[in-house]
Amino acid sequence: MTAPPASSRALESVLDNLDREEPAALDRLFRLLAIPSVSTDPAFHEACIEAAEACAGALRGIGFEARVEPTLGKPMVVGHWRAPPGRRERPSVLFYGHYDVQPPEPLDEWTAPPFEPRLVEDPRYGRVIVARGSSDDKGQLMTFIEACRAWLEEHGELPVDVSVLVEGEEESGSPSVAPFLAAQGEELKADMALVCDTGQWDADTPAITAFLRGLAFSEITISGPSRDLHSGLYGGPALNPLRVLSEILATLHDEQGRVAIPGFYDEVRNPSPTELEVWRRLGFDAGGFLGAVGLSTPAGERGFSVLEQLWSRPTAEINGIVGGYGGPGTKTVIPTQAVAKLSFRLVPGQEPHKILAALHRFVEERLPADASVSFAHEGGSRAVGFDMQAPAFQAAARALEAEWGKKPVVVGCGASIPIVESFRGKLGMDSLLIGFALDDDRIHSPNEKYNLRSFTKGARSWARILAELGVAVGRSDRKRICRR
Amino acid sequence: MTAPPASSRALESVLDNLDREEPAALDRLFRLLAIPSVSTDPAFHEACIEAAEACAGALRGIGFEARVEPTLGKPMVVGHWRAPPGRRERPSVLFYGHYDVQPPEPLDEWTAPPFEPRLVEDPRYGRVIVARGSSDDKGQLMTFIEACRAWLEEHGELPVDVSVLVEGEEESGSPSVAPFLAAQGEELKADMALVCDTGQWDADTPAITAFLRGLAFSEITISGPSRDLHSGLYGGPALNPLRVLSEILATLHDEQGRVAIPGFYDEVRNPSPTELEVWRRLGFDAGGFLGAVGLSTPAGERGFSVLEQLWSRPTAEINGIVGGYGGPGTKTVIPTQAVAKLSFRLVPGQEPHKILAALHRFVEERLPADASVSFAHEGGSRAVGFDMQAPAFQAAARALEAEWGKKPVVVGCGASIPIVESFRGKLGMDSLLIGFALDDDRIHSPNEKYNLRSFTKGARSWARILAELGVAVGRSDRKRICRR
Repeated sequence: MTAPPASSRALESVLDNLDREEPAALDRLFRLLAIPSVSTDPAFHEACIEAAEACAGALRGIGFEARVEPTLGKPMVVGHWRAPPGRRERPSVLFYGHYDVQPPEPLDEWTAPPFEPRLVEDPRYGRVIVARGSSDDKGQLMTFIEACRAWLEEHGELPVDVSVLVEGEEESGSPSVAPFLAAQGEELKADMALVCDTGQWDADTPAITAFLRGLAFSEITISGPSRDLHSGLYGGPALNPLRVLSEILATLHDEQGRVAIPGFYDEVRNPSPTELEVWRRLGFDAGGFLGAVGLSTPAGERGFSVLEQLWSRPTAEINGIVGGYGGPGTKTVIPTQAVAKLSFRLVPGQEPHKILAALHRFVEERLPADASVSFAHEGGSRAVGFDMQAPAFQAAARALEAEWGKKPVVVGCGASIPIVESFRGKLGMDSLLIGFALDDDRIHSPNEKYNLRSFTKGARSWARILAELGVAVGRSDRKRICRR
Repeated sequence: MTAPPASSRALESVLDNLDREEPAALDRLFRLLAIPSVSTDPAFHEACIEAAEACAGALRGIGFEARVEPTLGKPMVVGHWRAPPGRRERPSVLFYGHYDVQPPEPLDEWTAPPFEPRLVEDPRYGRVIVARGSSDDKGQLMTFIEACRAWLEEHGELPVDVSVLVEGEEESGSPSVAPFLAAQGEELKADMALVCDTGQWDADTPAITAFLRGLAFSEITISGPSRDLHSGLYGGPALNPLRVLSEILATLHDEQGRVAIPGFYDEVRNPSPTELEVWRRLGFDAGGFLGAVGLSTPAGERGFSVLEQLWSRPTAEINGIVGGYGGPGTKTVIPTQAVAKLSFRLVPGQEPHKILAALHRFVEERLPADASVSFAHEGGSRAVGFDMQAPAFQAAARALEAEWGKKPVVVGCGASIPIVESFRGKLGMDSLLIGFALDDDRIHSPNEKYNLRSFTKGARSWARILAELGVAVGRSDRKRICRR
């Protein structure tokens, strides 16, 4: 049996390949960014299929078997590279990314069309890639595929067996993931998952994300009069659904900023004093974090630091309200309906379906006479946390330190990656969450960007992580690669 | 000097003319209804100009001098018919209507395109005219023009001197009226105004509207973060403008349904016991009024009847909220801004500018740290009330009784007609508010309609009112035609 090509010299040639091939890699990324694969808007369904085909093509182009698998929503891309028979046992990983992107609206705030990617000179970061999806998640996804490409070009094989799953509904709650994993999860099972959809600590410091908040979401429609009414002819005696909605939404939080839904905090545990001490030592710049988006005062629960509010406290947010006249000028209407889109960030212990059931009761109990409510577009995922002392996490930490010259910071993330919870719950896999996004990448906002340095050093980081994971298996029990 | 043709025989030939000419009159109305003159949306500016030209053309076609006068907004139509020199002194009236219409949205709730007028068989009313503007106000406007046409065709003259003012911004707060009346009001001054923009008591009972609520309106924009934020990455510490807006809007009313803005009721007087007794005797069907729009419980101030809530109590209404993601599906965003369109119905004594100033203070005092507010698209008009015992009102009541076989009911109206307040304040004219709309005409809503009977008997009513006003002057002092 040949030894796997994980020697220092083998890695060097992979890293050189990545440096040399950067312009071509950027060209491949730009072609993917040009596809408007907005999963949440049916108008872009065809573009989502096109993006899935592009991902499968990219995988086949570097030597993977890959295919596009239909679902009831957007298709999944599944790819595999496995070592030729006769190699020593090696760990297997499942890489996960998503090809879908957030809606680009409001379009008039983009300085250039969102699906015409370009390199822009940024005063702080040098060249940055500007396009919807550049950071979330097409740019990140391609860092991994480029790392695999370089390994395969230089050595004809990868240090570990790699499967790839690229989904197309991450931005709309991943409704197809659970049925897909239930039906075809066996094929995807690996020793662990690698997920590239998170961020660095700062532009110079890598991070491994060890805990993620969960999510529950719902769309509330309050109905009143059977048709839109003239507010002069009916105003006073007629129930106004916008007023009902505002009055209910205003009771979602108490004066301390706590969510007022009964039972909401029942399963929430506080971080240990040790955890809090580690977080304190991170020296998180709360003022800078808020200041970068025009804010100065933490608006969350009283008595918790900004980092606690982000990593260990659940939230209730109003993501959108639509009702009545929204066009230019004045229309004195009492609308027949008012709609609010709500989402809740969850922490370990909270169950999305229980939170949504409590929301339903909370709203229903507050309805005045003649008002009714319906709930739609609901879903969610639990929060998760990982053991950072396990071999795979330590191997990744070594690789990141070698690339960046600094130990990675172990962080939480306020955002949800529903698939991570599914990997644990359905396939028994923990996830190594490593990404190269920055807080100011403006994901979900106009002018989303991804630093060119994130893209190039991201690919180099994955090349190193693959090498370290290939070595790690020699020193540890495969079954225990993720949990001590 | 010839006597004016106000004899019973003269009137009969006018009424015969109207009956005979109904199909042609309907055709003229349909051509006006086909013009999408939505004043509040800049996309329809050209259509507004086209509607103004059409109105001027209609007036010239029946013998008026008429012209289209530009304003900073939509043009005014001004027309005059004056008796030949040598006639005895006669009263003069200024007729007012508006050619602009409300936006037709939501379009998918119309059973036919809103600007393709058609006659539809209604199970309750027989034939009805369905189109945006059929009732508010093009159909009503044309009842008067057709009455004048018939008088002029039959007798070559009108019983009174008539000026006509048709504006194009009634549905967007009439911003050009004040400057126009200030500059050219002298030309429009008459003994009284006739306004056809109100309704009947029911399908068989005419009404004269003696009091109108006023209006104040404002668009509130709450701003927070400098850009849209991901609710996972920022949710908790980041201020959410939709939450701020909801919490402020929820405090607009107290638990009794009273408007909670300090000073809001300072100038509000209660109707006299006599007035309340008259209203009580009207036998207003509050259950039917609410039931027709899917409601059952009066939602206004506790302790006031539905009629009081509509005619004598001011309101605060939320007419629209827009903020965050409003498209299909989910987007977990914390938006940079949230906007609410508010309007207040006012009663005599309340000053729009004072109400808006109090609103500003009310909102500003409730802003949390990092939130700011701006106010836009503001305006309003005072409420008004008239003396129903004055000669002109009595003359109109006689005419309506002759046409409908029932005495007209004297009513209030919850809606505002800003020009009526301007006529009183700027030109010293009271207004005779007579219209033939019904409560279920769905004005400002999809499938707006105007009963064919309203249109034909409306024109006949105006023909009779013109005759009665021509006689009334012989019996009364012109200066006192509207006030005893």
